[in-house]
Amino acid sequence: MSSHPTTSRVWTLAEPPTGPITSSTFSLETQDLPELKDGQVLVQPTHLSNDPAQRTWMDGDTDPRRLYAPPILKGQSVTAGGIAKVIKSKSSKWKEGQEVSGTFGWYEYAVVDESQIQSEAIKIPGQSPVISLSFLGGIGLTAYFGVFDVCKLEKDSVVVVSGAAGAVGSTVVQIAKKVVGCKKVIGIAGGKEKCDWVKSLGADECVDYKSSSYAKDLKDLLPDYADVYFDNVGGEILDVMLPLVKRYGKIAVCGSIANYNGEPMKLKNWREVIYNRLHIQGLIIFDYLDRAGQAISDLSGWIKDGKIETTGGEMIVDTKFEDIPATWQMLFEGGNKGKLITKLQ
Amino acid sequence: MSSHPTTSRVWTLAEPPTGPITSSTFSLETQDLPELKDGQVLVQPTHLSNDPAQRTWMDGDTDPRRLYAPPILKGQSVTAGGIAKVIKSKSSKWKEGQEVSGTFGWYEYAVVDESQIQSEAIKIPGQSPVISLSFLGGIGLTAYFGVFDVCKLEKDSVVVVSGAAGAVGSTVVQIAKKVVGCKKVIGIAGGKEKCDWVKSLGADECVDYKSSSYAKDLKDLLPDYADVYFDNVGGEILDVMLPLVKRYGKIAVCGSIANYNGEPMKLKNWREVIYNRLHIQGLIIFDYLDRAGQAISDLSGWIKDGKIETTGGEMIVDTKFEDIPATWQMLFEGGNKGKLITKLQ
Repeated sequence: MSSHPTTSRVWTLAEPPTGPITSSTFSLETQDLPELKDGQVLVQPTHLSNDPAQRTWMDGDTDPRRLYAPPILKGQSVTAGGIAKVIKSKSSKWKEGQEVSGTFGWYEYAVVDESQIQSEAIKIPGQSPVISLSFLGGIGLTAYFGVFDVCKLEKDSVVVVSGAAGAVGSTVVQIAKKVVGCKKVIGIAGGKEKCDWVKSLGADECVDYKSSSYAKDLKDLLPDYADVYFDNVGGEILDVMLPLVKRYGKIAVCGSIANYNGEPMKLKNWREVIYNRLHIQGLIIFDYLDRAGQAISDLSGWIKDGKIETTGGEMIVDTKFEDIPATWQMLFEGGNKGKLITKLQ
Repeated sequence: MSSHPTTSRVWTLAEPPTGPITSSTFSLETQDLPELKDGQVLVQPTHLSNDPAQRTWMDGDTDPRRLYAPPILKGQSVTAGGIAKVIKSKSSKWKEGQEVSGTFGWYEYAVVDESQIQSEAIKIPGQSPVISLSFLGGIGLTAYFGVFDVCKLEKDSVVVVSGAAGAVGSTVVQIAKKVVGCKKVIGIAGGKEKCDWVKSLGADECVDYKSSSYAKDLKDLLPDYADVYFDNVGGEILDVMLPLVKRYGKIAVCGSIANYNGEPMKLKNWREVIYNRLHIQGLIIFDYLDRAGQAISDLSGWIKDGKIETTGGEMIVDTKFEDIPATWQMLFEGGNKGKLITKLQ
C-alpha cells in the first residue's frame, strides 16, 4: 500500500484585491487534507491554467450572480483550471493514476468532488502535452460552441470574424471554413503577416484593421452583408461592423478587449440594431460544459485528421510551488506570448 | 354615376436631400391618375402622419436593403402613413365611402393597391378621430409587439422601461402591468411630474433620470435584476442598465434618441453582454404588420374597457395642400407636441 499525503501546501486569497495585486494578496499555508468520501478524488495538479478571468473571481465586491464562475472568497484557495493526477479515488468515474483536466487550484494536493473533473487529459501525438488546457480547453470549446450553437453557421453563411489571428478567432475561421464549409469567411486582423496567416487557415479574405481603408475594404467585401459577425474585440471594429450585418443578422459577442477595464466603448452606429433588427448575444463557454465531451471529441478528431490545426501556442513555465503567484502575474505584465501554463515542478 | 377625379396634385421629391430640407427639395406637380385595375382602390387622404423616419426614406445614399420602408426616389411622390377615404374601388376588400388607414402619400388622390390599406380607420367614442395614426398606429403596435413578441413578458417578469413617459414607453408600462400583470414594472422618466404620471399608469416604481442618484436608485430597486429592459432611449441609460439585466436576460432596443444623428454612444459596461450572456434585439413595427389586425383589435378592446388609456396625445394641424411640406417641417423645428398629424383642408 502506498501512503498518501495528509497535508498540502495551498495558496489562499488573503486579501481580496481592490487594485493591483500585492505581496499580501495571497498567502502560502499548509492545510490538512480531509478524508475521502464516496464520489471524491484526491488529486495532484501538474499544470495550472493562468487566465485573466481569475482576477475577476477574486473581486469580493461583485455580486456572485454576475460572475461566470464561483467567486474566490477571502481565505479560500485560489481556483484554476488545470491538469492533475488522480492519487486516490472513491469515484466510480476516475481511477488512480489517471491524468485528468478540470477545475482545480493553487494547491499541491486536494480532495475534490468528481464533478470538478471535466475529462481525461487528452494526448494527441505531435501536439502539446497540455492541449487540454489550451486548444482543447477554453479556446477550442469557445470556438466550437460559438460556431455551432450561438452563430449556427451553415454552408450558405457569410461570416466575419474579428481577432482572427487570435487563439479563438483563428479556430472559428477554421471550423467555419473547413468543417462547416461556409460560403464566405472574412477575418479581421492587424497587419499583413497576420492576415496572410489567417488566409492560410482557410479564410476567403482577411482585412487589416491597421489599414486606413479597412472599413471600406470590409464594406466592399460584403456586397450582400454578413449573416454573422463573430466579435472577439468590441470597440471601433464592432462599430464598423454594425452597418455591415444584414437585416435580422447575428452578432456573437465573445470578447471586448477595449472594454474589460471599463473604458467607454464608442458606438456611432448603434441605431443599426433597431433599423435592421440585429440580434446580439453574449457567449461564454461555461454555458456549454455539459457538452464539452462531444466538442473535445470532435475537435480532437479534426486535429488528428489534419482538418484543422491548433493555433495560438502556449508558453509553459516551470514553476516552484512557492512561485505560482509570480508566474500568474506574468499575465498582467505582458510577459507571456500565447496561453500561459504553469508547470509545477 | 358620380364623376371621379382624373388628375391629382402631388408633392414629389425633386431633390433628395443630403442636408437640411430646402424649398427645392419638394416639387408640387399635377399628375394624371391611371385607370383602376382589379385589386386597386382610388383613395383621397384626409389625414397624414408626419414621422422623422420619412426623412431617412428620402436618403438616396442608403442601400434600400438597409431601410425599413421602401425608399422615396427622386421624382416619386412622398410616402406617408395616413387616413384616406375610398373614392372608388375595384378591390373585394374595400368599398366606396370607407375610411381606411394605411400607407399613402402627399397627394390629393391616388390609385393604390389594396395591400397599401392596412385596416378600416378605427373610431372609438371619446377618443381622437385619428387614433388610427397615433395610439392604434405605430405607437400602440410597437408597444404591443414589443411586450408580447420581442420581450415575451409574463406574470413573473421584472421589466424596466425607459422613455416611460413617452408615447411608446407609457403604453408598454400599461400593457406590462395591467394586461400581462408583470410582477414588477419600473419606469425611467425625466422629472418628478412625469414619474408620478408613469406610476399613475400602473408602474410599480419610476426612477427620475435627472436625479444624480438614479443609477443607484435603479440598482436598489432591482435586487434580483431585471428580466427585460425595454430600451426607448439608448445612451447613458442603456449603459446603466447593462449591469442590471439578469443573466440570460433580454434587452429590446426600440429607440436610441441620442444616436439617430450619428453621435457616438458611450458604453462602459458592454462587457456585461459577455459576462452575463445578454440577448439584445432590435424592434421595428414593420416586422409585425401582417398581425396588426389582432393587435388593433386587442388595443381597441382594452381602451373601450378602460383597462389602458391612450397616451402621448396628438397635434392636428389644419393644412392646405400646398403647405404639406411646411407642416411636416415642424417635426424638425421642435414645433410639435405629441404626434403631429396633418389634416388636409
